[in-house]
Amino acid sequence: MGCGMSPRFERELLMIPGPTMVSPRVLRILSKPVISHWSEEFKEAFLEALRLTQMLFQTEGHPFILPGSGTLGMEAAIANIVEPGDRVLCVENGFFGERWSEIVEAHGGVVDHLRFDWGQPIDPKLVEERLQEADYKAFTIEHVETSTGVANPLEEIGRIARGTDAVCIVDSVCGVGGMPLKMDEWGLDLCLTGSQKALGAPPGLALLCLNDKAWSVVERREKPVADYFADLRRWGPVMRDPSGYFATPPTGMILGLLEALRLIAEEGLENRWRRHRAFSEAFRAGLEAIGLESFPARGYEAHTVSVAKVPEGIDDAELRKIMRERHGVIIAGGLGKLKGRIIRIGHMGSATITDLAATMSSLEMALKILGYELRLGAGVGALEERLLPYLSTP
Amino acid sequence: MGCGMSPRFERELLMIPGPTMVSPRVLRILSKPVISHWSEEFKEAFLEALRLTQMLFQTEGHPFILPGSGTLGMEAAIANIVEPGDRVLCVENGFFGERWSEIVEAHGGVVDHLRFDWGQPIDPKLVEERLQEADYKAFTIEHVETSTGVANPLEEIGRIARGTDAVCIVDSVCGVGGMPLKMDEWGLDLCLTGSQKALGAPPGLALLCLNDKAWSVVERREKPVADYFADLRRWGPVMRDPSGYFATPPTGMILGLLEALRLIAEEGLENRWRRHRAFSEAFRAGLEAIGLESFPARGYEAHTVSVAKVPEGIDDAELRKIMRERHGVIIAGGLGKLKGRIIRIGHMGSATITDLAATMSSLEMALKILGYELRLGAGVGALEERLLPYLSTP
Repeated sequence: MGCGMSPRFERELLMIPGPTMVSPRVLRILSKPVISHWSEEFKEAFLEALRLTQMLFQTEGHPFILPGSGTLGMEAAIANIVEPGDRVLCVENGFFGERWSEIVEAHGGVVDHLRFDWGQPIDPKLVEERLQEADYKAFTIEHVETSTGVANPLEEIGRIARGTDAVCIVDSVCGVGGMPLKMDEWGLDLCLTGSQKALGAPPGLALLCLNDKAWSVVERREKPVADYFADLRRWGPVMRDPSGYFATPPTGMILGLLEALRLIAEEGLENRWRRHRAFSEAFRAGLEAIGLESFPARGYEAHTVSVAKVPEGIDDAELRKIMRERHGVIIAGGLGKLKGRIIRIGHMGSATITDLAATMSSLEMALKILGYELRLGAGVGALEERLLPYLSTP
Repeated sequence: MGCGMSPRFERELLMIPGPTMVSPRVLRILSKPVISHWSEEFKEAFLEALRLTQMLFQTEGHPFILPGSGTLGMEAAIANIVEPGDRVLCVENGFFGERWSEIVEAHGGVVDHLRFDWGQPIDPKLVEERLQEADYKAFTIEHVETSTGVANPLEEIGRIARGTDAVCIVDSVCGVGGMPLKMDEWGLDLCLTGSQKALGAPPGLALLCLNDKAWSVVERREKPVADYFADLRRWGPVMRDPSGYFATPPTGMILGLLEALRLIAEEGLENRWRRHRAFSEAFRAGLEAIGLESFPARGYEAHTVSVAKVPEGIDDAELRKIMRERHGVIIAGGLGKLKGRIIRIGHMGSATITDLAATMSSLEMALKILGYELRLGAGVGALEERLLPYLSTP
């Protein structure tokens, strides 16, 4: 057994909604010799990565890059904003939205749930109403709910957040870098992501930004943060001047992230949003052409991941196994109560047009093998048709 | 500005006490395409890395590999063992030993300090006496105090821990993999390290092992852990079966760590300990030959890092700058109250005999440039003399 690839496929297409494939430019950086965390080079790179993180989140706020999973970012948000006894409204419409309440409770917060059906977007009106019913310290929401492929209407959420003292905490792990997110313009207070999704870097880093409203809540806390490693006031000085020390930064990972962020800056954030939108529309057109029904509510589909219902009579595990073993194409199944009912295809970060077409082709062949009726090439054809106008614009 | 290397030195010698240089075999793994955290390949690799972690710590206990810095490992130890109000004895003889009390206090523990001079080892007799004076839940100790180059007498500490209910928590960030540590045989309850030191992997992962005594304390807790990401009971199921999900594992980093652990297994742990001991003795002989005084108390020198006093009249920042800029050799200065008074040279993990000789040569030249009197070649000569017998044994 080698590390990294199956024996049959030296190159696999990793089309799950994260971790995603990363650019060869990023991979080359990761294989460079380790450098000192005290070197000028590392300090400059770290500061540039922090500046690009602000660009990514479209904010002048306070950026943090922490060694850990996106889950550490979620915990840092709650651990720093919420004090024991504080009320928090968890706005939930999927597997990841439902994780927030566990973290809030671990930190002594009092959770109220506002639940929407999985596959439906959250309704900003109901959020606004609930926020007026009690004195909430914060509310949590997903940008893209990775488990259902729904993109929640964040811009309206930001407008609502502006009218309250509650800190609006946004999990954009599967959004930022692939879909519009304008933290300052929209009025979102604390946004976070992981390195391994639409950013096109490997997993291992959490990125957070806090605006002044969120940061002042952290600074005015009465009780210390019941957490050492996720305490943003301990990390703060290092983010302003990496000559300081709090914990050894993962130097190579941060250089890799920087290269991924530079790729985003080179592409241009608006162009990147447009590309993800075009990919998403094209892939959905392909799914529709072969008769697969999109799972998320129409008009609320994420641009980073496509989610389709598994057709009647098809075993999704078998489908994914054929794609993986015969074509080297890796897609994801459903999580929690959607296990076996949906397939999820990530097309974000460094995914390309040819990756999309190849994945659609693999899906067609695998469905055919399982006895599903379709015209071979129909999905790819529809996908191409939708991509051509996008590709012909300069 | 490129990422990774200064313009003059395509290859630098990174001889600080961590992060350390990693083998080209590990670097190649890091540059492989990202794989899915749900793949069989990743699960097998993760389980193998956990088994090798047990080998590394010489334990049949419970291994954990967490995404984060070594500091996360320290927090996980305290967050899971200590409940608010619990008394903890922090045994301190340097910069890193003194960090434990901050973490204990963040988690509501009551700290008693047992302090020894920086550069001196801790005295097991005094530890034993203090542990009998109160009902301690745990005590903390450094294996190697990275800031002074002292290796504490862990074997005696383990014997003492066996006689008490207190959980013996050992920070072996700069020890394990480079110096003997026999967790089960010695009776140490919870040991931890980071990936970036004597293991020869890049920074970004914390490794912990708990024996049954420590694990039963975690399982018998009355209050939940006031921390989500460092809660070992949440991670536990994933460490036994990586098909589960708690947070996205840094797949590439874990494959890189596995390769580093395989290198350790191939070398053989006892051979590796012997190599580090020989390197340490040789480097100290070289320092002595050019008149540099070793900082740690005689007989307690770590095998992973050499620490010497800066000679009278020499500016340590200038010395390190010359080595870095003219020779591409990176060594470390002092931390905290030892800033400017000592130099620290890491020689662990994948460091080689030629790295040692080159570093000594650079040190000789830089000292000469600064007006220090020495016979050029004397340090390297003494180093060679000590290495020859080691190299001639099979």
